[in-house]
Amino acid sequence: MDLEDAGIGEGISEVIVTTQSASGRPNAAPIGVITLINGPQRGELRHFVKLYRGSQTLANVLETGLLAANVTSDALVFVETAFEDLSEDKFTVFARMPVLKEANAWVVFTSEVQEKRSGYLYFQIFPRAVEIRRKELRAINRGLNAVIEATILATRYGLVRDEREKEELQNQMERLAAIVETCGGRRERHALRILNEKVHQSYNLQLAPETYKK
Amino acid sequence: MDLEDAGIGEGISEVIVTTQSASGRPNAAPIGVITLINGPQRGELRHFVKLYRGSQTLANVLETGLLAANVTSDALVFVETAFEDLSEDKFTVFARMPVLKEANAWVVFTSEVQEKRSGYLYFQIFPRAVEIRRKELRAINRGLNAVIEATILATRYGLVRDEREKEELQNQMERLAAIVETCGGRRERHALRILNEKVHQSYNLQLAPETYKK
Repeated sequence: MDLEDAGIGEGISEVIVTTQSASGRPNAAPIGVITLINGPQRGELRHFVKLYRGSQTLANVLETGLLAANVTSDALVFVETAFEDLSEDKFTVFARMPVLKEANAWVVFTSEVQEKRSGYLYFQIFPRAVEIRRKELRAINRGLNAVIEATILATRYGLVRDEREKEELQNQMERLAAIVETCGGRRERHALRILNEKVHQSYNLQLAPETYKK
Repeated sequence: MDLEDAGIGEGISEVIVTTQSASGRPNAAPIGVITLINGPQRGELRHFVKLYRGSQTLANVLETGLLAANVTSDALVFVETAFEDLSEDKFTVFARMPVLKEANAWVVFTSEVQEKRSGYLYFQIFPRAVEIRRKELRAINRGLNAVIEATILATRYGLVRDEREKEELQNQMERLAAIVETCGGRRERHALRILNEKVHQSYNLQLAPETYKK
């Protein structure tokens, strides 16, 4: 099953992973699908995920063995799922799995634990069903990239204890916020505003507050 | 003429701009197309570019009034066109303009100078012909984003005189190089290697040299 058409190629693909508990409660979280090309057969793609201990995604995958990758370039859904539960009306069903209505492609995977580490479990994942819902063309937008990057740093900020490292992360996030303001469209700037609310609530941080005074 | 289908939406779209001299010699350079939504008619999109003094793109646009935006997510072509002339076999012709064979979409614009600044001229540009060649789906890849960002910083590095600012740019580029190595596919890692050669030739800089010792 070739996932490149669905947008998942070699390297790390940042997607929204949807899962459900044994009782059927859906969950969504931004996760990188790692795709390596050095399979036993030349050119074969193999897919992996790291699922962190304590996460709902890991709990659900351990219960059901299943996860779905939702391919999207909507910055807002990355910010939302990084910090909160997504409301149930954002989900639909594909191959008996909860997936995001608005995604451009869905891939349902089965999973197999490869390695247990102190912080995470490393799974190989195997595509079982793919649906490409729409192909879209988007020029590179530094604002979109920057808001995704800032979201990743913001979740890391919550895990770091070292004060110098926290300060460095804050500097990077402010640099990224400025790029979003300059290069993003309304969707990316809106996502940044939501991210700013989240980091304010969670860490009492304010990213580039001067841009919000206007 | 709606450019959103061709991948050029609100915000700054990073594209490869192709132009030709009056004598027909083609040129390609990475440039941001600025798209604003506050046109005189509600929701109308207007497009602009800043063309820097001394650039071949500006010289060509002043001679012919025309430019083409090539929408692509190929990191390598951003690196190549930032630092060197593209060989003629990479071009084809659309609406009597040179465009990149491998691009996903082409948009040919006419132009009108809006403002002359000391460093650049600011043009409003008007789409005259659009061709969407292929729509592709790509999950967000931090490696792709990082190599584009590093390329932009590398071109800026050549213009900056302040030593502290240069050092800060170098730090950012090294941070980005590490993201490319971790998250990119072969195409992005190859683009980074080319970028590394260019910054070494141009500025005697070596980005994250330890990753090249392997």
